[in-house]
Amino acid sequence: MTDDLPPNPALLPAGLRDLLPPDAETEASAVEALMTVFAAHGYQRVKPPLLEFEDSLLAKSGAAVADQTFRIMDPDSHRMMGLRADTTPQVARIATTRLGAAPRPLRLSYAGQCLRVRGTQLAPHRQVAQAGVELIGYDSPGADAETILVAAEALDAVGLTRASFDLTLPTLVPSLLDESGLGAADRAALARALDRKDAAAVARHGGALAPVLTDLLLAAGAADRALEALAAAKLPNHAGVLARRVSDTVAAIRAAAPALRLTIDPVEFRGFRYETGVSVTVYAPGRHEELGRGGRYICGDSEPATGLTLYPDAILRAAPPRQARPRLFVPFGTDRGVAAGMRVAGYATVAALAPVPDDAAEARRLDCTHILRAGQAALLTEG
Amino acid sequence: MTDDLPPNPALLPAGLRDLLPPDAETEASAVEALMTVFAAHGYQRVKPPLLEFEDSLLAKSGAAVADQTFRIMDPDSHRMMGLRADTTPQVARIATTRLGAAPRPLRLSYAGQCLRVRGTQLAPHRQVAQAGVELIGYDSPGADAETILVAAEALDAVGLTRASFDLTLPTLVPSLLDESGLGAADRAALARALDRKDAAAVARHGGALAPVLTDLLLAAGAADRALEALAAAKLPNHAGVLARRVSDTVAAIRAAAPALRLTIDPVEFRGFRYETGVSVTVYAPGRHEELGRGGRYICGDSEPATGLTLYPDAILRAAPPRQARPRLFVPFGTDRGVAAGMRVAGYATVAALAPVPDDAAEARRLDCTHILRAGQAALLTEG
Repeated sequence: MTDDLPPNPALLPAGLRDLLPPDAETEASAVEALMTVFAAHGYQRVKPPLLEFEDSLLAKSGAAVADQTFRIMDPDSHRMMGLRADTTPQVARIATTRLGAAPRPLRLSYAGQCLRVRGTQLAPHRQVAQAGVELIGYDSPGADAETILVAAEALDAVGLTRASFDLTLPTLVPSLLDESGLGAADRAALARALDRKDAAAVARHGGALAPVLTDLLLAAGAADRALEALAAAKLPNHAGVLARRVSDTVAAIRAAAPALRLTIDPVEFRGFRYETGVSVTVYAPGRHEELGRGGRYICGDSEPATGLTLYPDAILRAAPPRQARPRLFVPFGTDRGVAAGMRVAGYATVAALAPVPDDAAEARRLDCTHILRAGQAALLTEG
Repeated sequence: MTDDLPPNPALLPAGLRDLLPPDAETEASAVEALMTVFAAHGYQRVKPPLLEFEDSLLAKSGAAVADQTFRIMDPDSHRMMGLRADTTPQVARIATTRLGAAPRPLRLSYAGQCLRVRGTQLAPHRQVAQAGVELIGYDSPGADAETILVAAEALDAVGLTRASFDLTLPTLVPSLLDESGLGAADRAALARALDRKDAAAVARHGGALAPVLTDLLLAAGAADRALEALAAAKLPNHAGVLARRVSDTVAAIRAAAPALRLTIDPVEFRGFRYETGVSVTVYAPGRHEELGRGGRYICGDSEPATGLTLYPDAILRAAPPRQARPRLFVPFGTDRGVAAGMRVAGYATVAALAPVPDDAAEARRLDCTHILRAGQAALLTEG
């Protein structure tokens, strides 16, 4: 469909937009394709509401998105409500309350819209679609691997066959810093240096940790090299547990999908809000925009869980264009059964509402690709 | 899935709720089935945002839902935004702005969530899904008939083969009252009497209009009888135009779908907010809950349009239960290719994440219907 007019910037608030044909259809089809793969792996769909009481929406893991959440007063209860900025905390609420007695592991999926108070330069959109899976009540490398493998298969289904999964351990650096004996100023400077990937500053502020952190910083990239560096670092306590876990998770993924593109960034911890274990960011090859994000977290008060959320908007931008249904002009007075047969055959029929002097010209005017002539779909040539 | 716990009334605000398995999946499948029928008839999907500036959201036809619209301050622009309570005004905005130059008739479809400030006794839900079509830029009985026929086919596709379409003319009574010469008090009393279907009160307050209004009131029901009463009433001016239009619309519908259940309520005018011509309310047989609603309206400043919105929540409650994907337990260590083949065959595979002593017991615990044994799906018997 033609869209000759530029979007009027005064019309919609920053970060909010209309999806027009064919993008709205492409995005919706992609969501359904993702959800079909999730369902095929036993993930059952839930649909929490867009609005909840602030108390429950921002409790537990939801607290991480409190500053991104729009608030509205409920005229019914006079309590504050929030518009969801993330779906995982709502699914966790459902898992611990109404599905608290359902057998574990509990596999749930969801798709819907989220709203955020502010966009960022990297993520300017304030309405973000999410489609994801949560695997609740089980803690193992196989569980961590499963959500990644299911997400990879879902991306395959929308034509993103070469997505890259970047594994991270968001609690590794904080755990090392906590145990380092470094002062608060050095710890803050070190966190900033790691965040900026500034090896010189890591060396300057790292104290006794400097050699190991520098090695881990430089090992970010291909999974095998990073796993070697993690093993060589002989990390203590929680950090050591994480290093072994990511190694086992990679092994579980490789056993099922040897060709999956896996990288590891051992010192990355930015942007993960409630993850406590092996986490992942998903990218399309050659693009900086994230296709999805997830990882291990605590569901409710203490239940182990892992999940992965894909971003259909980003998938729409990265995926190969979808073949649209061909548009077939149906002249006025055509037998309705013939038109119905054409819909079954995969055409979108565009019915004339009145006779016109030149059916072919009318078909072209209506952006049709085909015209119904003598019971057959004829390709329209340039007129 | 078991859901033994009653919903906690303190957990979610009134009128908002979680959809659990299998309802969330059933509703989503129904929406996609409806949208597939809309697409097959050349309706192209658009996706307006959930939030817009109040000025544009509540302009023109949007004004009708102003009192049902949640407002939020935009921290970016410091202007007021509204959460959509209805999608049609947004689609009209898109049609008149970014798609203002697209050829007419413009056929658009949409599916998404709406939020409302208050529920009513009849419609308690404050988050309402909508899936609909708009046919913009054409005014004819054939156009009015098309949206009804497409909606009927869409309802067929989700198993609601006997939906009933109740045609109404919401501007007929107001037009007769305007031309009646009756005083304000009698007009108000007459409107209330018609709204309550109170024939005695209609006779008392109707003055010269009483006989014709009583005839029309009593003619509500089967389309043919109502059309006879409308013809016999020899209505003047706008009311006469409406009477001829609904007759032509019924003829256009009957020509295409002779078995469609059609009723007409000539004096009904309640609950239509911006409709200006032939309008419709859709019911499942034997149910009072509306499955959808629509009618002719003015798109933007002056463009003729008609549309119909279906309510997936109501469809979920009225439609026959959907056959769920059978759940197949896949024992630990099963070849991944075998499990993948079972997904292609239509099973939801539920993978064991660790070996268990009794696979069949584990499969039953996880609510599976089948278990994978020697490469075959075996139906689980009661254990």
